[in-house]
Amino acid sequence: AGAGEVEENMAAWLVAKNTLKIMPFKLPPLGPHDVRVRMKAVGICGSDVHYLREMRIAHFVVKEPMVIGHECAGVIEEVGAGVTHLSVGDRVALEPGVSCWRCRHCKGGRYNLCSDMKFFATPPVHGSLANQVVHPGDLCFKLPDGVTLEEGAMCEPLSVGVHACRRAGVGPETGVLVVGAGPIGLVTLLAARAFGAPKVVIVDVDDHRLSVATSLGAHATVKVSTRDEDLDAEVERIQAAMGGADIDVSLDCAGFSKTMSTALEATRAGGKVCLIGMGHNEMTLPMTSAAVREVDVVGVFRYKDTWPLCIDFLRSGKVDVKPLITHRFGFSQRDVEEAFEVSARGRDAIKVMFNL
Amino acid sequence: AGAGEVEENMAAWLVAKNTLKIMPFKLPPLGPHDVRVRMKAVGICGSDVHYLREMRIAHFVVKEPMVIGHECAGVIEEVGAGVTHLSVGDRVALEPGVSCWRCRHCKGGRYNLCSDMKFFATPPVHGSLANQVVHPGDLCFKLPDGVTLEEGAMCEPLSVGVHACRRAGVGPETGVLVVGAGPIGLVTLLAARAFGAPKVVIVDVDDHRLSVATSLGAHATVKVSTRDEDLDAEVERIQAAMGGADIDVSLDCAGFSKTMSTALEATRAGGKVCLIGMGHNEMTLPMTSAAVREVDVVGVFRYKDTWPLCIDFLRSGKVDVKPLITHRFGFSQRDVEEAFEVSARGRDAIKVMFNL
Amino acid sequence: AGAGEVEENMAAWLVAKNTLKIMPFKLPPLGPHDVRVRMKAVGICGSDVHYLREMRIAHFVVKEPMVIGHECAGVIEEVGAGVTHLSVGDRVALEPGVSCWRCRHCKGGRYNLCSDMKFFATPPVHGSLANQVVHPGDLCFKLPDGVTLEEGAMCEPLSVGVHACRRAGVGPETGVLVVGAGPIGLVTLLAARAFGAPKVVIVDVDDHRLSVATSLGAHATVKVSTRDEDLDAEVERIQAAMGGADIDVSLDCAGFSKTMSTALEATRAGGKVCLIGMGHNEMTLPMTSAAVREVDVVGVFRYKDTWPLCIDFLRSGKVDVKPLITHRFGFSQRDVEEAFEVSARGRDAIKVMFNL
Amino acid sequence: AGAGEVEENMAAWLVAKNTLKIMPFKLPPLGPHDVRVRMKAVGICGSDVHYLREMRIAHFVVKEPMVIGHECAGVIEEVGAGVTHLSVGDRVALEPGVSCWRCRHCKGGRYNLCSDMKFFATPPVHGSLANQVVHPGDLCFKLPDGVTLEEGAMCEPLSVGVHACRRAGVGPETGVLVVGAGPIGLVTLLAARAFGAPKVVIVDVDDHRLSVATSLGAHATVKVSTRDEDLDAEVERIQAAMGGADIDVSLDCAGFSKTMSTALEATRAGGKVCLIGMGHNEMTLPMTSAAVREVDVVGVFRYKDTWPLCIDFLRSGKVDVKPLITHRFGFSQRDVEEAFEVSARGRDAIKVMFNL
Ligand SMILES: NC(=O)c1ccc[n+]([C@@H]2O[C@H](COP(=O)([O-])OP(=O)(O)OC[C@H]3O[C@@H](n4cnc5c(N)ncnc54)[C@H](O)[C@@H]3O)[C@@H](O)[C@H]2O)c1
Ligand SMILES: NC(=O)c1ccc[n+]([C@@H]2O[C@H](COP(=O)([O-])OP(=O)(O)OC[C@H]3O[C@@H](n4cnc5c(N)ncnc54)[C@H](O)[C@@H]3O)[C@@H](O)[C@H]2O)c1
Ligand SMILES: NC(=O)c1ccc[n+]([C@@H]2O[C@H](COP(=O)([O-])OP(=O)(O)OC[C@H]3O[C@@H](n4cnc5c(N)ncnc54)[C@H](O)[C@@H]3O)[C@@H](O)[C@H]2O)c1
Ligand SMILES: NC(=O)c1ccc[n+]([C@@H]2O[C@H](COP(=O)([O-])OP(=O)(O)OC[C@H]3O[C@@H](n4cnc5c(N)ncnc54)[C@H](O)[C@@H]3O)[C@@H](O)[C@H]2O)c1
Ligand SMILES: [Zn+2]
Ligand SMILES: [Zn+2]
Ligand SMILES: [Zn+2]
Ligand SMILES: [Zn+2]
Repeated sequence: AGAGEVEENMAAWLVAKNTLKIMPFKLPPLGPHDVRVRMKAVGICGSDVHYLREMRIAHFVVKEPMVIGHECAGVIEEVGAGVTHLSVGDRVALEPGVSCWRCRHCKGGRYNLCSDMKFFATPPVHGSLANQVVHPGDLCFKLPDGVTLEEGAMCEPLSVGVHACRRAGVGPETGVLVVGAGPIGLVTLLAARAFGAPKVVIVDVDDHRLSVATSLGAHATVKVSTRDEDLDAEVERIQAAMGGADIDVSLDCAGFSKTMSTALEATRAGGKVCLIGMGHNEMTLPMTSAAVREVDVVGVFRYKDTWPLCIDFLRSGKVDVKPLITHRFGFSQRDVEEAFEVSARGRDAIKVMFNL
Repeated sequence: AGAGEVEENMAAWLVAKNTLKIMPFKLPPLGPHDVRVRMKAVGICGSDVHYLREMRIAHFVVKEPMVIGHECAGVIEEVGAGVTHLSVGDRVALEPGVSCWRCRHCKGGRYNLCSDMKFFATPPVHGSLANQVVHPGDLCFKLPDGVTLEEGAMCEPLSVGVHACRRAGVGPETGVLVVGAGPIGLVTLLAARAFGAPKVVIVDVDDHRLSVATSLGAHATVKVSTRDEDLDAEVERIQAAMGGADIDVSLDCAGFSKTMSTALEATRAGGKVCLIGMGHNEMTLPMTSAAVREVDVVGVFRYKDTWPLCIDFLRSGKVDVKPLITHRFGFSQRDVEEAFEVSARGRDAIKVMFNL
Repeated sequence: AGAGEVEENMAAWLVAKNTLKIMPFKLPPLGPHDVRVRMKAVGICGSDVHYLREMRIAHFVVKEPMVIGHECAGVIEEVGAGVTHLSVGDRVALEPGVSCWRCRHCKGGRYNLCSDMKFFATPPVHGSLANQVVHPGDLCFKLPDGVTLEEGAMCEPLSVGVHACRRAGVGPETGVLVVGAGPIGLVTLLAARAFGAPKVVIVDVDDHRLSVATSLGAHATVKVSTRDEDLDAEVERIQAAMGGADIDVSLDCAGFSKTMSTALEATRAGGKVCLIGMGHNEMTLPMTSAAVREVDVVGVFRYKDTWPLCIDFLRSGKVDVKPLITHRFGFSQRDVEEAFEVSARGRDAIKVMFNL
Repeated sequence: AGAGEVEENMAAWLVAKNTLKIMPFKLPPLGPHDVRVRMKAVGICGSDVHYLREMRIAHFVVKEPMVIGHECAGVIEEVGAGVTHLSVGDRVALEPGVSCWRCRHCKGGRYNLCSDMKFFATPPVHGSLANQVVHPGDLCFKLPDGVTLEEGAMCEPLSVGVHACRRAGVGPETGVLVVGAGPIGLVTLLAARAFGAPKVVIVDVDDHRLSVATSLGAHATVKVSTRDEDLDAEVERIQAAMGGADIDVSLDCAGFSKTMSTALEATRAGGKVCLIGMGHNEMTLPMTSAAVREVDVVGVFRYKDTWPLCIDFLRSGKVDVKPLITHRFGFSQRDVEEAFEVSARGRDAIKVMFNL
């Protein structure tokens, strides 16, 4: 923007099925506890693609044009009067959900379950694929030197893995199975390693993704099919891949009957299965044989309180998310269209990132 | 037994499908930490009936004649040299499972998951429907005055409800749904009340059982069908029956797709569903919609460390199991046959008890 | 207030040591999530008396005149635009602390530890002994029919006992010792009973308070001295008073070397001691003999998320706080002075209550 | 031992104050679940030295000559009929305590609190500084290739640090303070690092021990005094050494008023202080200021279920105990005497090890 002119804030709007348009986006006023952030890195999540294709996820329906994007980091441009922990120029990663702080979940320390959550790019709330956004300061976390803005944006997907590992109690005594090696499976693998899991086996139907998993630190990979009749043999191969260790925790990052059944059967008595993937809602599962071994199932919905830990994992090198960023784009209309195409196509694309 | 004669110890043997025979049962030698108990009250459990009908439950197969029965109480007749907390004449309730104390589960405080468990009337281990049994002294719990031997025998099924309430964290802040009002559902209701649950709603397909539940302290009952298409409406009726309170914990004491789906849907975000019933192994469930509300599923396998609490519940009157004992029999061949008939028939029979 | 006039809001101001004055108190503007409450019942807490006597507690110093009072209930007179769960005329109990919802403690579910807490009558924040106050709506909890406003005000001290029982894990398997039978010891006794503690022994140096404890449901009382040399014998008497049960949890509601030492010594291996009382800061304690029995010490600071449970305890009759209210006053200058005198004098005064 | 002769089993007997004698030690018969182990590496613990100097620790008094030693590893020479997981020739580390498996602590998963524990070299139970011992097979843990027998013996002290980290909940989000850099402080530092603690500060009065701590991975060290008046300034220096991170957990491995006060004051609100050291029993501590910040105190008594994790830490290299072994001796009378002298003298001696 030239001297004296006010730059117009542009954003990527989801206006109709398969249609994204870069258009002006008027920022709300800056509250006393808010900050204004210039976006620098925004990743594309599977849910962004899903909204683009379907204009809905479950009962969340895009009825009005909505700015897309929620995995993001940027630079502080303005701070509200009550914000003391951030200054103009600070590089920050943004936690995308603003909860109500009045409901039982918020007060009880599980704010991710807030039924009044306002979450970037979950209709009717606008997202963050924009030049600038206004956001509560306490949801913006300063990045230390040595952690890039792209890595900052990766805190969002990484948070899902971190929250899953916390809920499942992954630690240095936990033999881990990860089912599904998509972006979420891979960050979950990274998180499990960072929580100290001494052995992590990961399975997928796709060879390429398994090879990425190996390069990210999986101890063993098992290629599986989508056929139910292979389940028993696959469970045996998975357990064998643990090399004598028990599977204490299985993290299902796909979310189908087959994957959850695999997880339930493979996990030792007294262990836990964590359901992260949302492939299907209805699943047919061997529940009683799990229950009598007291294999518990814990759900995962996003995350809470994860940014400081994610940033520390990145700073210390316990987690390296950079290999996950396979494609980069600018912020032109054409860039946005292409980037979503690449992300939707999958294959070798893991994380597609905008540099604004 | 006349003076000078050694009385022959008789037991009820499962010798073939639908065939129980009272026959002599030779007791093992008394170890230093064992006691010999004269059985006085033995209840019939659904699993006893199942073994009688099928000669198996899951992979536990009755290959040799086996003494049946495991819900029991009696009077100490002899104590091993190392037993200091019991004396001849003490009235005791027996915990039926002897675990190995060497495996990870035993050492870790979850001995109910011991893979080397020796459990009354789980083949090939003999049960306790006998004049006398030899059992480890630390699994025999003295009954205080005012708690009858029949009540002592009821500690076994009550323990299932207690273990479920513990695993699910039922307390004075927990709105509870119990699904299924059979013997296990009813003891679970009693346990939930004794753990302080301020509101317990119970559902069943059977009016009589619901009326028993009401008389035992359920705050509301909901009659349901076995049709899947009624599920949504039933969940609404169940939630309405809570009178504004959330369902924090659902305890499924039936164990079918329909009942678990009901439990998962009815439970609030952040709540727990506890699976106790074993109606079917395979269940088709709305897993993702449960997981995104972080409704966790916890399994229940029998119990651990429950007898002292059960006895205290009985002593203090917090739990009254006496209304559950609907039928009583002696220990003749005919009694045994009739008692199992009555128990298997169900209807108004809840707990059928032998008085030996 | 006559028609057309605006009634002036009056409050009891702490203006100097031992000096309370009823003076006008200008209310802050009503925010969208706030409510305006007409105070009806306000209790006097030991800390109110302490501020009156010393103008400080620890590093909290009364530098400017401050409205006193924080145990309170009243009737809604006005609701902010965003308040949906309350209506004018609702009778409510008020939780006195407004936390920041931005710090790690607030986000992590332990908002009582918020370092930015604004708490009624903790300087420099004004209290609630006033005709009216403005307060966040989510900290006002509707009282059901049958729970009086005085009982509503008692939710505040009761909350301390509830929070202590939660932190210590009191339940139907917990043998409990309460040390100190002042107002806090007594509400802790009531809370422990309501959490299902099967046996509660309470000790004090004062016979009258012990007799109140007995009438409130203590199973046994033990009169103790303040002499260190009596400790061992007193521990024996306390353990004997449990009648064979272990002391799993001790709740020290006095807070002296003698009382904490008693608690630590009396508690079984693997048990917990909860420190609520603040008699002295420095204590001399047998720490190693506690540590090698893994008797843990848990602290208590006020409470969090306790009002709904307290109200349910009152509604259901599991807790009856009415016997604790020993004195009642109106809201004239003379009433206020006398009421604080009575409360400070102690003796048979347990809770002194204003009816406004 | 020559062909045909039966070798005589020799052990180091504590026969009187400051007097150890190598004398024959008759082995008990091998039970079905026992193994006979040829000892290869035995470390000297502070408690061994204490028994040598005082013939007692607390109420454990050496009344009869007792074989000393309990940190040990060796090679299996014979296995009982019921032992299936070990074979002759296996290299194993020994967990020294045999608990009763009948008391509430054993059944509840806290067997370290068993009041009937039989523990190597805790009178009247013999220890393991002997050519051979007989021990329960389930307390002998096979060492993988690459983990030496000396490292196996180090599992014992390491277990104390592991148990402390578990009880205090140390993980990748835990800022840690270790107080005291003796052998126990150093293994606790190693354990905290292995549990993922991102920052560990350690303090001692001794420069040499702090330099060892640095070489073992402490992020910062703070030299402190034993003077109470330095406490506040030292707490400030300790907090500064954390470089902005909170101290979430403090682990006191010394156990004096000064060290526990330091730990309590330095730890953040909501954190934990773990008391491992047993310097003094009585301590004078700022308990109320800790309690109102809900800084809890957790005790540590030995360990439970730690060997598999310790061995995995050694195998994977997450923990390297080798630098702690500063002195080595054989098993002659003179060796034993000198080794205990060196260990008792302290200074640069951290762990003194026998190679048998
Ligand atoms: N719970 C939450 O808060 C949360 C947050 C983000 C994403 N998610 C969900 O996580 C899931 C994974 O997300 P993603 O971005 O990695 O998706 P993705 O589709 O890229 O990855 C899924 C992976 O699972 C593999 N897979 C599919 N079927 C399989 C089978 N039968 N066995 C083994 N592997 C199989 C696929 O090959 C793929 O690699 C999605 O369902 C997404 O909606 C959940
Ligand atoms: N997990 C364990 O350790 C454990 C221990 C004991 C029993 N069990 C199991 O618990 C279950 C219950 O035992 P029980 O003795 O009470 O059996 P039961 O068959 O007498 O009781 C089951 C009850 O569920 C009701 N029911 C069936 N379908 C229903 C539906 N769709 N909706 C609502 N109610 C329905 C039935 O009417 C009946 O009252 C059995 O499956 C048994 O195997 C488990
Ligand atoms: N932790 C918190 O959040 C919190 C909240 C409210 C009050 N408190 C504190 O709780 C304590 C109790 O409050 P209260 O209002 O009941 O005070 P109080 O002074 O009326 O009651 C203390 C009781 O302890 C008894 N006592 C004193 N020394 C004793 C001893 N050696 N042995 C046995 N009993 C002894 C007294 O006789 C008295 O009955 C106070 O220190 C108060 O500051 C703490
Ligand atoms: N709880 C348990 O199960 C358990 C097990 C083993 C050992 N212990 C105890 O742990 C303690 C440590 O054992 P160790 O073998 O390392 O003993 P040690 O005496 O070698 O080490 C203690 C260290 O603390 C330091 N220290 C002393 N006073 C200090 C102070 N004021 N400030 C800072 N540092 C101070 C000393 O310089 C020394 O380095 C002993 O008391 C021992 O009895 C407890
Ligand atoms: Zn909320
Ligand atoms: Zn076992
Ligand atoms: Zn806060
Ligand atoms: Zn024991």
